[in-house]
Amino acid sequence: MLTAAGRILLRDGMQAVRFDRVAAEAGASKTTLYKWWPSPGALAAEAYFAQSRRLLDFPDTGDVRADLVAQLRSFVRWLKDDGAEKPLSELIGAAQMDESLAQAWSESYALPRRELARQRLRIARRQGQLREDADLDIIVDQLWGACYHRLLVLRVPFDESIAERLVDQALHGAAPRGAGRPEPAATDRGAG
Amino acid sequence: MLTAAGRILLRDGMQAVRFDRVAAEAGASKTTLYKWWPSPGALAAEAYFAQSRRLLDFPDTGDVRADLVAQLRSFVRWLKDDGAEKPLSELIGAAQMDESLAQAWSESYALPRRELARQRLRIARRQGQLREDADLDIIVDQLWGACYHRLLVLRVPFDESIAERLVDQALHGAAPRGAGRPEPAATDRGAG
Repeated sequence: MLTAAGRILLRDGMQAVRFDRVAAEAGASKTTLYKWWPSPGALAAEAYFAQSRRLLDFPDTGDVRADLVAQLRSFVRWLKDDGAEKPLSELIGAAQMDESLAQAWSESYALPRRELARQRLRIARRQGQLREDADLDIIVDQLWGACYHRLLVLRVPFDESIAERLVDQALHGAAPRGAGRPEPAATDRGAG
Repeated sequence: MLTAAGRILLRDGMQAVRFDRVAAEAGASKTTLYKWWPSPGALAAEAYFAQSRRLLDFPDTGDVRADLVAQLRSFVRWLKDDGAEKPLSELIGAAQMDESLAQAWSESYALPRRELARQRLRIARRQGQLREDADLDIIVDQLWGACYHRLLVLRVPFDESIAERLVDQALHGAAPRGAGRPEPAATDRGAG
């Protein structure tokens, strides 16, 4: 049923994910759908999650810059080439006015995805590729949040080339070197 | 009419911004409203813009860090203390499925707001407070986009304390000093 809903979602958008259509496409009964999902919106959210699962695997090549760029590139390709841009915008849009959808979205997708990113970033911090005092949640906000900002708020086009620019600026900052806040002492590194 | 719509929007949310209610509250005729706005959603977007206008003024104290922190703090206060969080989420949410609202939103609010931020950041770059090669649009994405990410996508709470952390990490990066990309030669600075 999730696969059927995901196919409908990517092909025809969120409005098309209705219990009757999913039941017909999956060869299941509407009763079963009603039993498992509180609303078509919640079903669409889980279907999106299932379809995008392969995107969640975070590479660990030992080079956090390369891995972040690769992950962001694959996210942008998923949006732009695989048709996810419209259903993703619609899902997040609808979640702003539908509490059951919002909950399914957060629990099935947004928060688990952030946790996977955190895990990769913790390794990088332990290896000294990130500052000891780097705020990992803010890195996530400044990479994926930037894409969502262009997608949902500014509504301006962007392409894969944003990945490197986002990662480099998140890692190295926009201020000239030497204008920075104090670097923690070398002996602090790797302590936390 | 905009003031009346803005009052309704902040008090009762976006669903309450209907032409009949705004006409009644403003003492205007519905015909006038229909003439000026293609949809209640477009009216709500412009009313939001009018209400939030005072937030758009970008301070210029000569210290870009302080000015960015002040601007972000006032944005977070507007969301959390002045009641804008819900109508703003609903507006952006509805824009994902309503093309006329999306257009009003981008043209009246999101893009002009980004342009004001760019202007302030250009001054900072000219003064050497930002790298010559800093991508100013990415700074905007990494500050305001981060707030929108928590508000719309992750749906996690945040407060004013995020402002300093966002700005410091955007300015100085998450990588340890010395792990950076090459700094442009000093003679390049101020050329662009």
